[in-house]
Amino acid sequence: MHIRRTSVHNAWDNAIPPVASLVPDAEFTVETADASGGQLGPSAGTAEVAALDFARVNPVTGPFLVEGARAGDALVIDVLEMAVGDWGWTASIPGFGLLADDFPDPHLRVSKIANGFAEPLPGVRVPVVPMVGTIGVAPPEPGAHSIVPPRRWGGNMDIRHVGPGARLILPVGVDGALLSLGDAHAAMGDGEVCGTGIETEASVRLRVGVRPGAAPPTPVVEADPRTHRAGRALVTTGVGPDLMEAAREATRHLVAEVSARTGLAPADAYLLASVAADLKISEVVDVPNWIVSAHLELSLLG
Amino acid sequence: MHIRRTSVHNAWDNAIPPVASLVPDAEFTVETADASGGQLGPSAGTAEVAALDFARVNPVTGPFLVEGARAGDALVIDVLEMAVGDWGWTASIPGFGLLADDFPDPHLRVSKIANGFAEPLPGVRVPVVPMVGTIGVAPPEPGAHSIVPPRRWGGNMDIRHVGPGARLILPVGVDGALLSLGDAHAAMGDGEVCGTGIETEASVRLRVGVRPGAAPPTPVVEADPRTHRAGRALVTTGVGPDLMEAAREATRHLVAEVSARTGLAPADAYLLASVAADLKISEVVDVPNWIVSAHLELSLLG
Repeated sequence: MHIRRTSVHNAWDNAIPPVASLVPDAEFTVETADASGGQLGPSAGTAEVAALDFARVNPVTGPFLVEGARAGDALVIDVLEMAVGDWGWTASIPGFGLLADDFPDPHLRVSKIANGFAEPLPGVRVPVVPMVGTIGVAPPEPGAHSIVPPRRWGGNMDIRHVGPGARLILPVGVDGALLSLGDAHAAMGDGEVCGTGIETEASVRLRVGVRPGAAPPTPVVEADPRTHRAGRALVTTGVGPDLMEAAREATRHLVAEVSARTGLAPADAYLLASVAADLKISEVVDVPNWIVSAHLELSLLG
Repeated sequence: MHIRRTSVHNAWDNAIPPVASLVPDAEFTVETADASGGQLGPSAGTAEVAALDFARVNPVTGPFLVEGARAGDALVIDVLEMAVGDWGWTASIPGFGLLADDFPDPHLRVSKIANGFAEPLPGVRVPVVPMVGTIGVAPPEPGAHSIVPPRRWGGNMDIRHVGPGARLILPVGVDGALLSLGDAHAAMGDGEVCGTGIETEASVRLRVGVRPGAAPPTPVVEADPRTHRAGRALVTTGVGPDLMEAAREATRHLVAEVSARTGLAPADAYLLASVAADLKISEVVDVPNWIVSAHLELSLLG
């Protein structure tokens, strides 16, 4: 089975009729649209970013009815393979992103994607580690729920480890599960700090199984080793009693450090952090100050 | 130069006289005490954990006066080599740790450390990735400051990437810098969720340089590739509008999942998470819900 990226929806709603039924343990392929829903093309500029219609962002392909799945079951999703497009976009969108106050203006970089690398900035080659940003099932609560935040039922989780070789386990909220996915990234850093990865169309081959009565409390992943980073990294830190502020501080310091070392404009360093740097909680116990660190492979700095 | 672990102090205070002077760019070796300051031995039990005198915890060896370092400079610290002891301890201490409310009772596991592995639980072999938990310089503010929280000047940062091969860059707060270090771990996970790693004595070979006027706003690290994890990982998640609560939720779910898969007692799974699982911020932009994930290599589950 092969589902085109024209069968999309833009909200979670268990009343949306399924576009197809899945037989458990059979493989199928889903095409996904990019996170702008086609609003940004390879020649787009910041004007198009500023004019984005948020009602059309983050389309997901589906929903798929999983035969035999019942509320309370676990849906076991194996991501078998992914092909991403030959270009992608990364944007800082006004009012959106971890440092929205620092970067009020729209900013956009288009990457060519080829030979296992994306190039969001001239000369900066980011290894392609494809992932599915949004994948989830319909919530049991009636009505339309925004596609933007993730929930217990998955959705826009932006966990960069959900890519080829990974297994994702979701709780089933309604009979039939009603699985949908979209928002593929050619690369992303843990945190997705500017709000976008290298956003691209994709084709995803999957297999879905059902474990009766085994719904996990929140999504569980088994992550593939190919999502590990391998190189020496520049690490900046945020220190303080609030994890969110520490995350902002670590990211700000990474942007400043990358700019100082490379001459990149801060807005470009911010985008680079979003597609390639990982936010880690270094410690969350040494009262009253926690440390969040931002890790970027030094090889990306030339 | 070789400094014994008897030259320790238990608070940050720029009035503490230096135990030795360092010539920039010369190598030296520092012995560090374990984080209990010798209160826990290899045959200790939970009674000793409950009776810990907090005034004696987290001793650091030093301070070292760095010749020529001035307030506002950057101290560039290369960790060249580390030897850890042949045993270590990991404890959940009442009132301390990310899940202090879930685990109110003291709990202790002693690891034998040999051949590159520590064994905090019978049959669970954790690779030794040695690190310095506490390393910092004296703050410019007068008086004694608690050794427990990290600050802009470093201290109890518990960044697991500060080990052999890493470079740490600290701001200098007072002339002479007054560097101290201690709290070595044979292994730790990002987050150090139960509050302790595999705590051990260590011998650390270092080199310290000075960059005039280049103090970073907070500590910066260049992390060595050997601190990367290599295996397929179990990943649990916390989803919600508060990063701290999401970190707690991800950790709770990891503890439950590990217990269910292995039969380990929850208190043991909590300790294992602290020494081997990494907390990552998966996304911090999909308003209003963020995702913190807890990653543990599946190979540790047998």
